[in-house]
Order: sequence, then structure tokens, then C-alpha cells
Amino acid sequence: MSEHTLMQPVSTQTERLRQLRHDVWQANLDLQRHNLVTFTWGNVSAIDRESGLVVIKPSGVAYEDLSADNMVVVDLAGHVVEGDLNPSSDTATHLVMYRTYPHIGGVVHTHSPHATSWAQAGKAIPALGTTHADYFYGSIPCTRPLTNDEIAHDYELNTGRVIVETIAAQDPMAIPGIIVNEHGPFSWGKDAHQAVHNAVVMEVVASMALQTLQINPAVQFINQALLDKHYLRKHGANAYYGQTATNKK
Amino acid sequence: MSEHTLMQPVSTQTERLRQLRHDVWQANLDLQRHNLVTFTWGNVSAIDRESGLVVIKPSGVAYEDLSADNMVVVDLAGHVVEGDLNPSSDTATHLVMYRTYPHIGGVVHTHSPHATSWAQAGKAIPALGTTHADYFYGSIPCTRPLTNDEIAHDYELNTGRVIVETIAAQDPMAIPGIIVNEHGPFSWGKDAHQAVHNAVVMEVVASMALQTLQINPAVQFINQALLDKHYLRKHGANAYYGQTATNKK
Amino acid sequence: MSEHTLMQPVSTQTERLRQLRHDVWQANLDLQRHNLVTFTWGNVSAIDRESGLVVIKPSGVAYEDLSADNMVVVDLAGHVVEGDLNPSSDTATHLVMYRTYPHIGGVVHTHSPHATSWAQAGKAIPALGTTHADYFYGSIPCTRPLTNDEIAHDYELNTGRVIVETIAAQDPMAIPGIIVNEHGPFSWGKDAHQAVHNAVVMEVVASMALQTLQINPAVQFINQALLDKHYLRKHGANAYYGQTATNKK
Amino acid sequence: MSEHTLMQPVSTQTERLRQLRHDVWQANLDLQRHNLVTFTWGNVSAIDRESGLVVIKPSGVAYEDLSADNMVVVDLAGHVVEGDLNPSSDTATHLVMYRTYPHIGGVVHTHSPHATSWAQAGKAIPALGTTHADYFYGSIPCTRPLTNDEIAHDYELNTGRVIVETIAAQDPMAIPGIIVNEHGPFSWGKDAHQAVHNAVVMEVVASMALQTLQINPAVQFINQALLDKHYLRKHGANAYYGQTATNKK
Repeated sequence: MSEHTLMQPVSTQTERLRQLRHDVWQANLDLQRHNLVTFTWGNVSAIDRESGLVVIKPSGVAYEDLSADNMVVVDLAGHVVEGDLNPSSDTATHLVMYRTYPHIGGVVHTHSPHATSWAQAGKAIPALGTTHADYFYGSIPCTRPLTNDEIAHDYELNTGRVIVETIAAQDPMAIPGIIVNEHGPFSWGKDAHQAVHNAVVMEVVASMALQTLQINPAVQFINQALLDKHYLRKHGANAYYGQTATNKK
Repeated sequence: MSEHTLMQPVSTQTERLRQLRHDVWQANLDLQRHNLVTFTWGNVSAIDRESGLVVIKPSGVAYEDLSADNMVVVDLAGHVVEGDLNPSSDTATHLVMYRTYPHIGGVVHTHSPHATSWAQAGKAIPALGTTHADYFYGSIPCTRPLTNDEIAHDYELNTGRVIVETIAAQDPMAIPGIIVNEHGPFSWGKDAHQAVHNAVVMEVVASMALQTLQINPAVQFINQALLDKHYLRKHGANAYYGQTATNKK
Repeated sequence: MSEHTLMQPVSTQTERLRQLRHDVWQANLDLQRHNLVTFTWGNVSAIDRESGLVVIKPSGVAYEDLSADNMVVVDLAGHVVEGDLNPSSDTATHLVMYRTYPHIGGVVHTHSPHATSWAQAGKAIPALGTTHADYFYGSIPCTRPLTNDEIAHDYELNTGRVIVETIAAQDPMAIPGIIVNEHGPFSWGKDAHQAVHNAVVMEVVASMALQTLQINPAVQFINQALLDKHYLRKHGANAYYGQTATNKK
Repeated sequence: MSEHTLMQPVSTQTERLRQLRHDVWQANLDLQRHNLVTFTWGNVSAIDRESGLVVIKPSGVAYEDLSADNMVVVDLAGHVVEGDLNPSSDTATHLVMYRTYPHIGGVVHTHSPHATSWAQAGKAIPALGTTHADYFYGSIPCTRPLTNDEIAHDYELNTGRVIVETIAAQDPMAIPGIIVNEHGPFSWGKDAHQAVHNAVVMEVVASMALQTLQINPAVQFINQALLDKHYLRKHGANAYYGQTATNKK
């Protein structure tokens, strides 16, 4: 398992970005390690909140050709600050997330097959068991389809906007993922590593939700009390899973 | 394949626990080797019946960071006897099994995807063929859902209790596994190694049972005579599978 | 890929059996290499027709502990001729095949998951496409269930008998496999290697047949002319697939 | 990942064919690397348009025995120009594609399991999401069944002809793949590497299309505006995915 934590004190923006390039590069490779991507179909970004700079995978570059050095740095308006390559074509979607939600530190997009199948079906991934409840405090919503106008102009920006519209008043950190209609999953977290972690969970629960429906088409959502129990034993002030009182997932 | 058997005579409790730490550590790694776990979603324990001490995986620690040394030792009341880390959050469930059933030497919990899908569906895994019958002498039951009160107070203890309630008068060694409603599978055996073995079988038969229903929704349970034949050719006094007259599975 | 062919002239029965032990050992390992087995759930045998001796996997021995030396040699009546271990518990079934069909040189039994699901469903694997037709000249039949009496007495022998009853007047070399009701697949071929090859094909076509039915529940059997074409371009006097005029599969 | 691009200037036909043998050999191995083939069930070819010579995999040779040297060179009429082995039994199908469509530089045929299941079901793979739209500008068609006469005489040639008949007036480079009824997928591209790439995509979208239908049997085709958007951001004059303005997929 790659090392995602900070190895030394970082006192300057240069040092922080150097570390973030490393973390984002490794998090992109983790998409492959967890079998979430075919070819180049996935991207991870992370933000340095102090400077407002975002590190993101370059567009259409094979995973084996990625390095910390060829990650692209953009500002929150989407201007390239460092890097010779084009940033991911989905950059505008990532930036909406960072601009809207101050607690999000990392964003992931994949076409992982089961989560994408739910997206193609236009259905939310229902919360059916404790595996889901350990990470997502309710069903993982599916956005409405974009209108033709939203597709024609500023498509990636509008993809971000429809995500925000769907989340609405919910806490994005309590349900750290969404599926974009006819497209695929996005997930996020406090950093790139946690965003990838949540992408893995989405794929697993998407697969199990389909199997569950196949066994029992009349299945009900998980009991709310059980959802609360599992989510809260891993998250928040009273968490007791893992080795500290804080969220260890 | 790792070595799970005792390599030398052990004359003291210290020696026995040293060996058990090794066995439980390896059995936890076996969950990964058999593709039963994502991240830290599984745990194995085993008991030293002479001392009444149980060795169990620490909570929320990545598999690659596990060692014989960081396994946690608890007594049957759940007090930590040895170890600096918190034991698995599911420890109370494991302990119910050891306290209730004297023949159980090892317990496993996973979120293996197909067995968990049956749990989410709230359905027993039906005995449909000889693969199932070789290890489970009947359908693998699914517990009732816990009540809100059972969830709110002593949740993990009550998970163990509902397992015991479901097993009722059956022999837990003849059907060495169960699925907990909306949650996932637990399995057990004479030791940690056999409990993992049964966890693998549960996942395989859970997957095949779903496929079987998809091919033939009107499928019947296995003929009782065939269930008897397969179970009894591997278990009990008249077993003839393997290299000895005893259970070789 | 392991070497399955004869490397040198063999002039004596000892030499032939030495070679056959090697071939059967490797063919058993091939079951693992092709992901057809969990634990010890599979066995391969082959026959030396000149002596009438059959080499078969020992019962319940882990694949990593197998060697050419611990393969068991039995005669066609099932008496152990060489070897310290018990032969596979399914030996009597294998022997029925060798006694009944003179062209069979190797037999395989597995619990490969998709073929076993068809067995549990009690349904023949329908011939739905050219992948199937390249190896099996028609649907792969499913036996009737054994009667309670057939299960109670000489179970493994009766398993062989019901296979023979199901094949009836068909050519076993043209459809070199069958599924035993509520149990799982058996396959065969001119030697152990080809029997394993056919076991792999059964698992693949079993999986695709289920998916095909899920896409189109009203699917028809493959056009007989296309079945003929594909089977016969790989088998028989007018075959033209591969590098010789003979069967190259 | 193997290197598929031209490493040096090639000035002669000999040099070009030497390079093409290497590329086609590697592209055939890529079928294995991407888990598209069982045994020898797949073949890749590519054409040198200047000479009209086609390099193709030999028939029925195991992937581990392939080399640049044993690739077979045929002309567009199917005569072997170089090589001691028989070319793929599907050669006549490949040649129809090269003769009919001047922009096709590489052709692939596999029995990849999900695409083959759609072929067995006799159904086009519907365009249900952006993963599909990124590579295929519409549903991937399924040919009509061949007539008995087409099967009996010049079967492989007629397989090519029914592909051409199905493509009809469409641009084969915009939907670079097809499924042949009761048989399996063919794909193509500007070269062998891109043809393999499209074969991988077909298998992925075939798998996701089935899952999508299982989640939502009433699913609609992707919105045409979204299909346009995704296809055109990767293809044609206004593409902006990747690192150049040209097609980078």
C-alpha cells in the first residue's frame, strides 16, 4: 500500500504542492490497484486550501506514464498554474466541488462498472446494508439528466452544478459520492486518499445492491436505526471503530 | 498456503497464546488471500479453551500492518488482557459464540460480497447442491432484523444473541455459518483456519445459489438423501472423504 | 503453460505410468491455473489403455501438496495398485467412464461455479453460439436426479451410471461433458489435458449461456447449420482449423 | 504496456512488414493482457496499405507460442505470401473489412464473454451511457443470422459480407465494432492497437449494458445530445480530450 501521509513538516507552498503532487499521483495509481479503471477512465484531484491550488491528473495519459511531475496544477478558476499537459477534461467538474464545499479536499471520477451501471440506469444506489451504512449515511443519489442546453455549453461545469443541485441541503461529507445520470460516479473526501477509498466503497455497494435486488426484488431500505448505528460508530464524536475516537475509515 | 498447524508441543499458556497469535494473524491474512475482504472489512478470532482467552484482530488496522504481535488478547468478558490496540469492534459478537458453544474454536466475520447480498436481501442461503452439502448440513439461516432497542444498546452483543436465537436447537458445528440480516456473514469452526475455510465456502455457495435461481427460479432444495450423503461422507464416524476416517475438510 | 506431451519414446509400462503420473499431476494443477477449483474441489484422472491402469488425484489433498509421486494408480475395478493415499472419492465415477467408453483417455470433475449452477438448476447448458459449437456438438445434457436408493448404495458408481444413461446412444466424444443433477460438471477427452480443456470450455459456455438468457429470455438454440459448421471445421476428416487436418483444439 | 508506435523511420516494404509483424504479435498478446481470450479464441490482423499485405495470427497457436516471426502474411485475396503456418481460420472475414473500408488498418475478433453473450442473444449493444459514447457513436449493431447457404459455402467470407451489409451506409470508423449473430464481436481501428482498444471497450460496455438492464429494464437510450458531446469531445476537428486536438483515445 502506498504511503499517503505527510512524512515531514511542510512550511512553504512549494513543499505543500510537491507533497500534493505525490499524493495525487499515488491516488490516481490507486484507482488501478483497486481495479476501478480501464485505460485512462478515471481521475483524481486534491486541493491545497491555503493557496487554493488544485493538483489533477493530466487528460488522456496512460497510468503507467503518470508521475508526480506531470500532474497539472490549476487554480480554482481553472487556469493552469504549473504543468505542460492539459488537465483532465473533467477539471471543471472537480472545481465546482472545491468551490462549493470547503470540507472537500479530494475528488475522484471513475467509470467503475457497477456504479456506472446504476448511473446508466438513472437510479440512486439504495442503502441496503451495513457495508453501505459504514461510509454513506443514506442512499447515494443519482442526478437528473442534463438538459441539451447544459450539455451544449459548459458541459463539465454543468455536470458539477447538477451534482450540487442534487446534494442540495444534505451534508456532502456524510454521503461522499454521487452518480451522474447516464455517466458515472464521482466521490470525494477530506483528501485524495479518502476520495479514492469512497470510490472503492461505491463500486462494492453498487455491485451488492444489484445482487440484493436479484435475490429479493422486494427488498426494503436498511432500517434507519441500523444506518445510524453503523455510520455513527465510524464517524463523529462518538465513533468507536478503529484505534482513535475520530473517524478511522 | 500458510501453515496453520501446531509445529511443536506447547506446554504453557504463554506458548499456546504465542501460537494462537500466529494462527489468528495468518487466518486474517487468509481472508485477503481468498478475496473475501475489501480494506479492513473482516476479522478472525480464535480461543484458547484452557485459559478462556481469545485472540482477535485489532479494529480498523490494514491487513498489511497486521502481525502476530499486534493481535489483541481478550478474556471471555471482553477485557483486554494483552495488546495496545483496540480489539475488533465486533469482539462482543465473537465472544457470544465462544461462551455459548463449547466446540467453536474460531470465528470469522466478513462482508464478502455474495454472502452479504443474501444478508441484505434478508434471505437464508438455500442448500441447492452437493457443494453446499459438503460443508453445511442444510440451508444457511438468516437472522431476523434486530429491533431498534437491540441496535441502540449493546449492538454487537445483541448481534451475537440473535445468531444464537436463530441457531436455536440446531448443532452449530453442522451448519457452521449464518448471515446476519442487513449486515453480512459470520462463520466458525474448530479453529481459526476452519472458520476461514467455511467463510470461503459460504461466499462460493452464496454466489452459486443466486446464479442457480437466475437459471431456474423454481429450483427445489437439494434432495435430503443427497444432502445426507455428501455431508456424511465428509463428516462424522462414517466419513470416507480424504486421507483419514475423520473430518478432513 | 505446462508441457503435456510425451517427451521421449516409452517402451515399458513403468515408463508409461511414470509419464501418466506427470501428466495427471500437471492436469490437476491446470484446474487451479484456469480458476476452476476452490480448495480441493476437483480431480483429474487418465488411463493407460494398454495396461488398463488409471492414474488419479488422491482424495482431499491440497493442490500445492500434489506431486507426480503421490498420484494414485488404480485398476479398472478400483483396486489401488500403487500409492499410499486414498484415491479421489469420485474414483468409481471416473472408472465407469473408462469402462464404458474406449475412446476416453482422461476424465475431469470440478465444481466450477457456473457449470455447477446449471447442475443445481437441473438444466442442460443450451448450445447458443459458436463458442459452444466449437467444442460441443449440441447442448450439454444434465442427468436426472439419482434416486434415494442410488444415493444410499454405491453412490459414486451410480453417478457414473446415470451419466452413461443420459449419454445413451450419443457419441461421448462429440459432446465431451455433462452436468450431474444437483452436483456439478464432468468432462472428458482423449487424454487428461483435453479433458481439462473441455472443463474450461464448459465453465465459459455455462457463464455465457446464463448471460445470454438474461439479455434475451426468448433466445433460440443455435441454428443447426451453424452448429455443424463450427464443430466440423475443428473436428473430423474435413477440419481446417489450426495447423493440421486433424482435430487441433 | 507494450510499445506500439513506430520507433524509427521505415523506408522499405521489408522494414514496414517487420514492424507490422511486431505490432500484430504484440496486439495479439494484448488480447490476453486485457483478459479478452480463453485459449486461442481471438485474433488480430493489420494491413500495410502501401503493399496491400495483411499480417495475421496463425490458426490455433497458443498465445505463448506466438512470435513476430510466426505471424502470417497474406495478400488481400487471401494468398499466403510469407509464413509456414496456416493463417487464422477467420482470415477471410478480416480481408473483407480491409477490402471494403480503406480507413481500417487493424481488425480484431474475440469471444470475449459479455460481447459474445449479446451476440448469442442476437441483440445490438445499446448505447446507454458516456462510456459507450466516448468510443462508439451509437449502438453497436448485431448482424442478421447467416442463411444456411451462407454458412455452407464461403462461411468466413460471408461473415465479412454480413458485417458490411449491417454497417450499410454508416461510417465504420464512428462505430468501430459489431457483433456477429450467434458468434461474437469484431472490432477495428486505424491500426491493430486501436482495434484491440475498441475490443476492450466493447467488452466493458457489453457487461455494463446487461447490468444496466438488470437494474432498470425500462432504461432508455442515451440522450442524443450527450452521445454527440462525448463522442465529439474525443473525436474529430473539435476534440479537446487528451493532449492534442486530434483523437487521443
